[in-house]
Amino acid sequence: MDAAPLTRSLVLVGFMGAGKTSAARELATLLGVPCHDADELLEAELGLAIEALFARDGEAAFREREEELVLRLLAQPPAVVALGGGALGSARVREALRAHAVVLLEVEPEIAWSRVAGSGRPLARDRARFDALHAERLPVYREAADGTLPRWDRNLLRRALPSLRALASGEAHGLRLLWATSASRDYPVWVGEGALHRAPWPLAVESRRLAVTDETVAGLHAGRVPGLAGMIEIPPGERHKTLATAERVWHALVRQGASRADHVVAIGGGVVGDLAGFCAATYQRGIAVVQVPTTLVAQVDSAYGGKTGVDLPEAKNYVGAYHQPAGVIVDPTTLETLPAPELAAGYAEVVKTALIAGGPLWSRIGAGEPVDQRAILDCARTKLAVVAADERDDGLRQVLNLGHTIGHAIETVTGYARLRHGEAVGLGLLATLRLSGRDDLREQVRDLLARAGLPVSIDGIEPAAVLEATRRDKKRTLGDVPFVLCQAPGDVRHGARVGDEDVLAAISELTA
Amino acid sequence: MDAAPLTRSLVLVGFMGAGKTSAARELATLLGVPCHDADELLEAELGLAIEALFARDGEAAFREREEELVLRLLAQPPAVVALGGGALGSARVREALRAHAVVLLEVEPEIAWSRVAGSGRPLARDRARFDALHAERLPVYREAADGTLPRWDRNLLRRALPSLRALASGEAHGLRLLWATSASRDYPVWVGEGALHRAPWPLAVESRRLAVTDETVAGLHAGRVPGLAGMIEIPPGERHKTLATAERVWHALVRQGASRADHVVAIGGGVVGDLAGFCAATYQRGIAVVQVPTTLVAQVDSAYGGKTGVDLPEAKNYVGAYHQPAGVIVDPTTLETLPAPELAAGYAEVVKTALIAGGPLWSRIGAGEPVDQRAILDCARTKLAVVAADERDDGLRQVLNLGHTIGHAIETVTGYARLRHGEAVGLGLLATLRLSGRDDLREQVRDLLARAGLPVSIDGIEPAAVLEATRRDKKRTLGDVPFVLCQAPGDVRHGARVGDEDVLAAISELTA
Repeated sequence: MDAAPLTRSLVLVGFMGAGKTSAARELATLLGVPCHDADELLEAELGLAIEALFARDGEAAFREREEELVLRLLAQPPAVVALGGGALGSARVREALRAHAVVLLEVEPEIAWSRVAGSGRPLARDRARFDALHAERLPVYREAADGTLPRWDRNLLRRALPSLRALASGEAHGLRLLWATSASRDYPVWVGEGALHRAPWPLAVESRRLAVTDETVAGLHAGRVPGLAGMIEIPPGERHKTLATAERVWHALVRQGASRADHVVAIGGGVVGDLAGFCAATYQRGIAVVQVPTTLVAQVDSAYGGKTGVDLPEAKNYVGAYHQPAGVIVDPTTLETLPAPELAAGYAEVVKTALIAGGPLWSRIGAGEPVDQRAILDCARTKLAVVAADERDDGLRQVLNLGHTIGHAIETVTGYARLRHGEAVGLGLLATLRLSGRDDLREQVRDLLARAGLPVSIDGIEPAAVLEATRRDKKRTLGDVPFVLCQAPGDVRHGARVGDEDVLAAISELTA
Repeated sequence: MDAAPLTRSLVLVGFMGAGKTSAARELATLLGVPCHDADELLEAELGLAIEALFARDGEAAFREREEELVLRLLAQPPAVVALGGGALGSARVREALRAHAVVLLEVEPEIAWSRVAGSGRPLARDRARFDALHAERLPVYREAADGTLPRWDRNLLRRALPSLRALASGEAHGLRLLWATSASRDYPVWVGEGALHRAPWPLAVESRRLAVTDETVAGLHAGRVPGLAGMIEIPPGERHKTLATAERVWHALVRQGASRADHVVAIGGGVVGDLAGFCAATYQRGIAVVQVPTTLVAQVDSAYGGKTGVDLPEAKNYVGAYHQPAGVIVDPTTLETLPAPELAAGYAEVVKTALIAGGPLWSRIGAGEPVDQRAILDCARTKLAVVAADERDDGLRQVLNLGHTIGHAIETVTGYARLRHGEAVGLGLLATLRLSGRDDLREQVRDLLARAGLPVSIDGIEPAAVLEATRRDKKRTLGDVPFVLCQAPGDVRHGARVGDEDVLAAISELTA
């Protein structure tokens, strides 16, 4: 996080009304480099408002002039450059952007519309076409973006500055950055090959890095994380996500002299992330944690959003805390050493997340495309967007439990020993799609899971016992067991009431 | 918290610039009763601005007219009434106010000045005199107030509404209310005889009340708390403030079917409050807790501010969380059954708090006055003001550790078994006053502690071991052990660096 000079331009892209011009000015000031606003420069060179050019010569002529100007700007020495919302329509611009650090400034269509409606902009005259244009362009922005900021916000921009600088100085070259937000804190998520050893570290160098990992990951990956001041190893597996293991970690932190200024680095899968996160959340009433997920489950789901905890024998995650990480570092190369069953278990969470996201992610995953870095990034985006809206599970966040109420219950009745968490989630998804009345989708998901080598049925469990265990699921409030149902990919709703008989039938079907 | 009709007026008092007029209008609207603003009515009746009356006839004439008007207002049917800042100067007004619910709207002199400077108010022309007037009047407001709000804030007022209504409906007659604030939440603190069974409950009736108490308190007081749905008993004493005991509580919560909508009621001393608060903070990632402190230590200190946790064998409070209560209910009658040594141990925290507060509280306590309900209330105010400014111990809150760094270390080296927490704090205070170079104050405090039956020396401890244990105190950051020193009552500062030899000498003196 030192102030290395920029070796390339920081180029802001995003929809009209996202605040690119304001953000670019602010960033240029903070970074001490020039600021170029493509739309403003174009109007100045033309001596004509963009609307007027549009009206006189049509969009194609405008795009031609815009492309020529943007290519000129991108050939100049490092600066902060704000591009117009449509500039990425040009393949030559997209190509030229590869040599620069592209930052997507996201914006809700609602907010964008409130900012530009009535401005006279040629593409902001009809709300439905405006929204359609946003939906069409968003994947293009995301594809091009090295970094993504969730919204224009001066304070957020300042906190993200070291990470943005790392993108433009070359330090983080080839890595993707998502800036995660929630009610309690925001933080960088770095995704990419080699992130493990070269992602910009989210905390100052004075804070000692104390790794918590499991005995398997310790030998494979933990040593690649730079600057560790200590390493605490726990036994691998969900059955060790217990208070007893947490106690071992707390004692080890004391032995290593951990103070409030130090932080935990959780290197491993969901168990390590949850347990180490909980230990950090409660050690001396809370120290920071950097999550370094090394399994697919963790990289697409559990490392984000700050849920931490351990299991009680009676039920999963019954003792825990919300504790947002200070950063998440995701290196997909760690998946190369992941045993096939673990990879398959993570795939269940990918399917769940794609069902929640709908859109391009579901199109790819539903079609059976393999899980690559892009899919991991899109899963992370989906989860982070939900957490940003509801950190503490009061509403929207419950959609992330799609398939989990029954999945957790199956884990509970099998003593957390027989199934991986992701395997149980896969079974839970199937039961949930039945409860959702989407048998076609259930078949499609069943095929995806089966092809990934995941169980699509289970024997030796008692449906009534599973039903009973759902009642202890901690999402229960005031005696009801709310279910998350999936009407369609991208249309997942929480809080549905479902009759016991329907639940029993959906579970029984898994044992058939 | 039902909407009982007002049986008396809600009368807002406080310094000029506190926002009494705005708050009164808002409250009257919310409560559906008339609003009377004494200053405004006076000006209307006189046909003259207050400044003009002051200038023409002098303050005495103004006060006479004001008294007459206020007494008339207080004889009317229940309403919300805003009084001028000086109205409590009249003994007849103070007497008449006893039949009403008086709410003090506090304000920082700095903020009040920024609101009224230049307004032409006769008493707001000179900053030094303004501040002196504030300091002079504050104890008068506090003496008269049934309830205290920390500042004018529309949202805060709405959250406090059920509590304020309870004051004016008679439901909470005779109880005092402090509205506590912090970065994460605000909540009511009820203080008074009988609060245990009749304080307005801070949570809705649908939320089940699950008591956590110790075996001693269970027999004495817990049964007086109304509406308990369950009772979890732990063994008494600091040596049971452990993870093992927390685990018992979590299991019991599961057995009692506690859901996120339910809450814990911590009934007992500091150990119960810390441990039950921690269990609530982490059960299902956090459920609400109502603190019902029954010891002096808890009533003057530990029940407020949200610090929760358990001890590790290596050091106190090493595993915990910040978890503000949903409310605190303080009934001084529980102290009647408190063993003398426990009362004495609490006295050490009273002395500490009075040293931090300075002013009238130190005047009374330093003079050897007994600890009564007023002292408890003032200690609570002092602690809450500090927490409001710094919930998470990043700065100011560390002043609350006056005497605690060494006190904790003494507890640690004596295995948490030999001394009560308050006894250790008393010894820590003496060592700290030596480190502060205030030998005179050390003598005064030594006398106070000795007369309360508290130890003022200790044998069988090794000063070097105590020094070593201070290094593990969790307030340590980056290797330094900061001390909180007391320059004078009311002037306590944190973050001082003190040489090892001075610390050793101050500890050795305790063993003499």
